[in-house]
Parts: sequence; C-alpha cells; structure tokens
Amino acid sequence: MFLQKLKEITTLIFDVDGVLTNGDIIASDSGEFLRTFNIKDGYALQLAVKRGYLICIISGGKGIAMQKRFEGLGIQEIHLGVGDKVAVFNSLLAKHQISAEQVLYMGDDIPDLKVMQLVGLPTCPADAVPEIKALSQYISPYTGGKTAVRDIIEKVLRVQHQWFDEAPSAVDSGK
Amino acid sequence: MFLQKLKEITTLIFDVDGVLTNGDIIASDSGEFLRTFNIKDGYALQLAVKRGYLICIISGGKGIAMQKRFEGLGIQEIHLGVGDKVAVFNSLLAKHQISAEQVLYMGDDIPDLKVMQLVGLPTCPADAVPEIKALSQYISPYTGGKTAVRDIIEKVLRVQHQWFDEAPSAVDSGK
Amino acid sequence: MFLQKLKEITTLIFDVDGVLTNGDIIASDSGEFLRTFNIKDGYALQLAVKRGYLICIISGGKGIAMQKRFEGLGIQEIHLGVGDKVAVFNSLLAKHQISAEQVLYMGDDIPDLKVMQLVGLPTCPADAVPEIKALSQYISPYTGGKTAVRDIIEKVLRVQHQWFDEAPSAVDSGK
Amino acid sequence: MFLQKLKEITTLIFDVDGVLTNGDIIASDSGEFLRTFNIKDGYALQLAVKRGYLICIISGGKGIAMQKRFEGLGIQEIHLGVGDKVAVFNSLLAKHQISAEQVLYMGDDIPDLKVMQLVGLPTCPADAVPEIKALSQYISPYTGGKTAVRDIIEKVLRVQHQWFDEAPSAVDSGK
Repeated sequence: MFLQKLKEITTLIFDVDGVLTNGDIIASDSGEFLRTFNIKDGYALQLAVKRGYLICIISGGKGIAMQKRFEGLGIQEIHLGVGDKVAVFNSLLAKHQISAEQVLYMGDDIPDLKVMQLVGLPTCPADAVPEIKALSQYISPYTGGKTAVRDIIEKVLRVQHQWFDEAPSAVDSGK
Repeated sequence: MFLQKLKEITTLIFDVDGVLTNGDIIASDSGEFLRTFNIKDGYALQLAVKRGYLICIISGGKGIAMQKRFEGLGIQEIHLGVGDKVAVFNSLLAKHQISAEQVLYMGDDIPDLKVMQLVGLPTCPADAVPEIKALSQYISPYTGGKTAVRDIIEKVLRVQHQWFDEAPSAVDSGK
Repeated sequence: MFLQKLKEITTLIFDVDGVLTNGDIIASDSGEFLRTFNIKDGYALQLAVKRGYLICIISGGKGIAMQKRFEGLGIQEIHLGVGDKVAVFNSLLAKHQISAEQVLYMGDDIPDLKVMQLVGLPTCPADAVPEIKALSQYISPYTGGKTAVRDIIEKVLRVQHQWFDEAPSAVDSGK
Repeated sequence: MFLQKLKEITTLIFDVDGVLTNGDIIASDSGEFLRTFNIKDGYALQLAVKRGYLICIISGGKGIAMQKRFEGLGIQEIHLGVGDKVAVFNSLLAKHQISAEQVLYMGDDIPDLKVMQLVGLPTCPADAVPEIKALSQYISPYTGGKTAVRDIIEKVLRVQHQWFDEAPSAVDSGK
C-alpha cells in the first residue's frame, strides 16, 4: 500500500521549519532569522528536480536566505509567508494539473495538519508533533533538518528507479 | 494538585537563556550575541497570546534580536537586561491586577530562584540546575530551546480547553 | 586529595575552544569565526570574578568577539592568539604572586598539554583528547561548551563556601 | 592490510560538507552559507601540513569563508565548486607525481563515490550514506564535523611516527 502510493508520486511538498531544518531559528540583530539546512537533503532535492519531479515549498516563515537557498536548488514552487496552506495546495493542483493522489507532503506541526489530510501521501520527520504523526502514513526515522527529507526523496526515487545510476555532478547549485 | 493549578493560570513568564534557548550564545564580532529559538515554541507562544493569555519575558540578557523576536510573536511584556526579577514580577502583578497563584514561571538557573519561590506554579526544563529543579512543581521532559516552552504552554491550554480546534494560520508572525 | 587541592585554588585558567565552546567554529565570509558560548558557564565565571578569584583565558585562537565576551564577564586576564601557553602561565604567576599549586587549569587538546603538567590542578571536559585526560586530576562529566566550566567553578566555590547565599543579579554583564 | 596501507599514505583528500562539517549549512540573507568547522580537526590538519603531508580539499560547495579557513590552516590544494571530482583527483596525481595508492580520501555522499573507487584508501565518517560506507576501507567511529577528520589524520601520523613528540604551538593559524 505504502509502496504502491510511492510509485504514483510526481510531486513532493515540504514545510520548512522542523522539516528542512531542525526547528531552530537563529535571531540576528537585523531582525532576520538564520536557518540551518542539511547538505544531504539539498543533494536529494536537486536530484529530484533534475529527474523531473515537481518540488514545492510551503512555509509560514519567510526570508531572503530561504528564497535564495531554494532557488539555488532549482525548486520550482516556493511559497513563503503562507497563512493558508490549503489554498496554496489547491492552486498548485490546478496549475500543474495534478491530482492529490500524486502528492507527497512532509510536515511537522499543527499548521500542516489540514493540508496533510488532503494529500495522497502525508509523511513526517521522527520529531513531528503527535497530531501530525497520527495522520502520517510514513514517519521517517530521521528528524527534521537531519535528513528526513533525504530519506523520503530517496524512497520515492528508488521505487521509481530514478535514484542515481551514475554519480551526478558534485556541485550543489544551491551553495 | 498540579492539574488544578494549571487550570488557574492566566499568565506565563519565561526566562530566555536556557529556557527559550538551549543556553548557547553565539558571539559575533559586533559584540552582539545571536540566540537560537525554536519554531515549535514560537507557535505555542503566539497561540497563547491569541487565546488571551498574558505572556511575559524576564531576562538578564538583552539585545535587538531578542526584542524583535518577541515583539513579532505578539508577546505583551518584554523585560530584558533585568537585574532584579522579583521587582519586575511584582510590578507585573500590580499592573495587570493578577495574583501570584495565576502565574506560571519557567526558569533554569540561580537568577530565577527568588522569583520562582513567589509564583503559583514554578516550572523548569529538563536541564535546569539542581537548585531550580528542587523548587519546581513541574520539570518538563524537554530541555531548554528544545520545546520545553511548547510543552508547558500546551499543558496549560489543553487543560483549559484552549488548544486548537481548527488549525490556525501557518504564519508565524515573529519570523 | 582532590578536595584538599580544590580548597587551595585562587586562580582558574581556561582554554577556549573545546572548553568554553564545544570546539565548533562557524566560518563567516569576513574571515572571522563565530564561537558559541554557554550562558551557565558565563554565570559561573562572573560570579567567580565577583568573589575575588583570578580568572584567566589562554587561547591559541583570537577574535574581537571572544575579547568582548570575556571583557563583558569581567575576566581579568585575557590572552588570545597565544603560541606558548607556558610562557603566559609563568608570567601570570610572577605578575600576581601566586604559586602553581593555587592554579586550576581546564584544557582539552595537545596545545594545553605542557602547561597542564605545571599547574596544581589540571582538569578537562568529558570530551578532551586521551593525552589530556591521562594527566587530568578531574574529568568533568560535562563536555566543552556544555557546562564543563560551570561544573568546575561550582566545585571550587562550593568547597570554599563561596557559592551563592542569596541569588545574585540576573544581569549577565557579558551579554 | 589497513595498517600497511596507512603507512604508504602521503596525501589526504577531504570532502567538506558532511566530512569537515556535520552537513549543516546556515543560510544567511546575503546568499552565502556559513559552515561549522571543528577546532580539533583544524589542529590535526595544520599539524599534517607541517609534517609534510599533502592535504587537499575537493568540494562541490564554495564560498569565501571556506577558502579563508583552509588557507589559514596552510592547506596546499583547495578546490571548491568542483563538478567532476575525478578530474581534479587525476590532475593532482599528475601535478604532485603521486600514485593513487598513496592517497587517502574521506567522503560521505554520492558525489564522492567515483573518486573513492580510485584512491588507495577510501574512508568515511560514521554518518556517511550507505553507498559510501560500502566501499570505505575504514569507517571512523566519529561523525562528520565531530572529529572524523582528526581521527583519520591521527591514525596516519601515528603509524608513521609523525604524531607529536613535543606539544606544538597553540596557535591555530586558521583562526
């Protein structure tokens, strides 16, 4: 069932804080927040983009640093400062002509709850809150910012025979 | 007893270093210090504010970054660079017409000791110093900066039926 | 024996990287390095200064951020960018008219080895290298940057009845 | 076999992210990324350079901060923003007149895979991906950025009787 669902995924949506990061935000005096991303997640994200998957970011947070990081990785849909994740999700389905069954979502906290009830394959890191774990069909053994994203991307690409045959370029274009 | 006390809480006061952070301060050449906050704590703090709780910060530390972070979350009483926490506590009781029994405090080190002897519900993170643990009526299983604050806010709001019914906005206004 | 030695200590010398930090240095594009200090260590350091102990820093590293942090805590002897720790140690003995038996040192790596053979009470964090552990008379259960310094200061002050009677000011003047 | 191979090593090549760091990259608003290095690794790197070993960095990542850190440690060959690690490896062999058998490499992820099949002694940190662990002849018990590099350098220098006889200068010229 889980394996079958993995085979149908064409689109992966990720929350940022607590999923692509460990939930820490470093406050600087300029009023911006520094976030810590993981290089192994970055490798998997850009590989998925190259393989033709639609990668989307939907986050309540915002900031130039996040925008630049995700653009550098080639991520196609970057939605920051979002108050209503369901609305963004629905517009993505319409714009890209995809069904909810083709969508995997990884979230970790209450603001992800409603949209995760709508997607085909809701997933979460090991340290998601209980409400999110309860509705996830896959809980990664890895925590947010510590390769939970790498883990789920690798699972999708492997089952679809899209993980690497030859080692791709070492350049992480997002760096 | 603990549950009964939770029901009476209207005001939550937090120390910063070691409570809202893990106690690390990153020294920069400008002489300011960067602190690392947790997004799950931030979610709970702003939700508590929206639900009508009085949230207060009393810290010996200071800095523009802290001020901006807490203002962004909507926190009503932000007291930084405080030498005498008891004096600030007493002025808060008078200003907001609250009794000590309605106040929960979370601290982690000696400078929190005296004020914690005065509040209705003294609490601490898992990694507080022994003197603080000894007088706390609740020791969170989570450490400072790693959702100890989320844990205690969630406990108060749940017992008062103020935790979410519908998932609120994903926007963390403090980001 | 260890307790007896603790009673004679008037001077505490600390290495920085791996002792007052966890050994991480964050490289910035300006060519400076950010270091992460611990607030509980800071509390103990300034308290020891107030109690009349001579606190010294001897580090091979250097930087404005370190200088400002240590000055802010009131530390009397700050020696950064030091190549020969033994020479600095000897000059400190002469300048302050103290004997080696009165000196506690906490170090973690090979550059601390020679000076640690000279002091009355050589100590180290839990994650010091084997060569340093081998000659330490006390190995803190805490690691560098994670309250190893707080631990040893507290031990000295307690045995000399100089740990707090009343909770001192919450202000960390180094912040 | 492993010990014998260690004795022949004259050249050590390191990947950066996940090897000299724990894989975290801190995104700043300027679009640069901050990386966190370990002081114990730095001590070993500069000691190896002083002992006459050829130290090389080959990384897909790039940045002024990395360049400055490695130059400060005296590292002779610094190759950043590299897409084809094998090509750089081959040019290093030719330029320095060394054979693959004399080269130790430490990598952690897919972009290191091909070059690691060519070197005499492929090694990795404890948290490398499975594909890299599978071809490594030594897996350090330490993780990337947490002294995996120190561990392997110390092993090479000890077996070649090049680890310290007297404690060298405390100055980390890279700081």
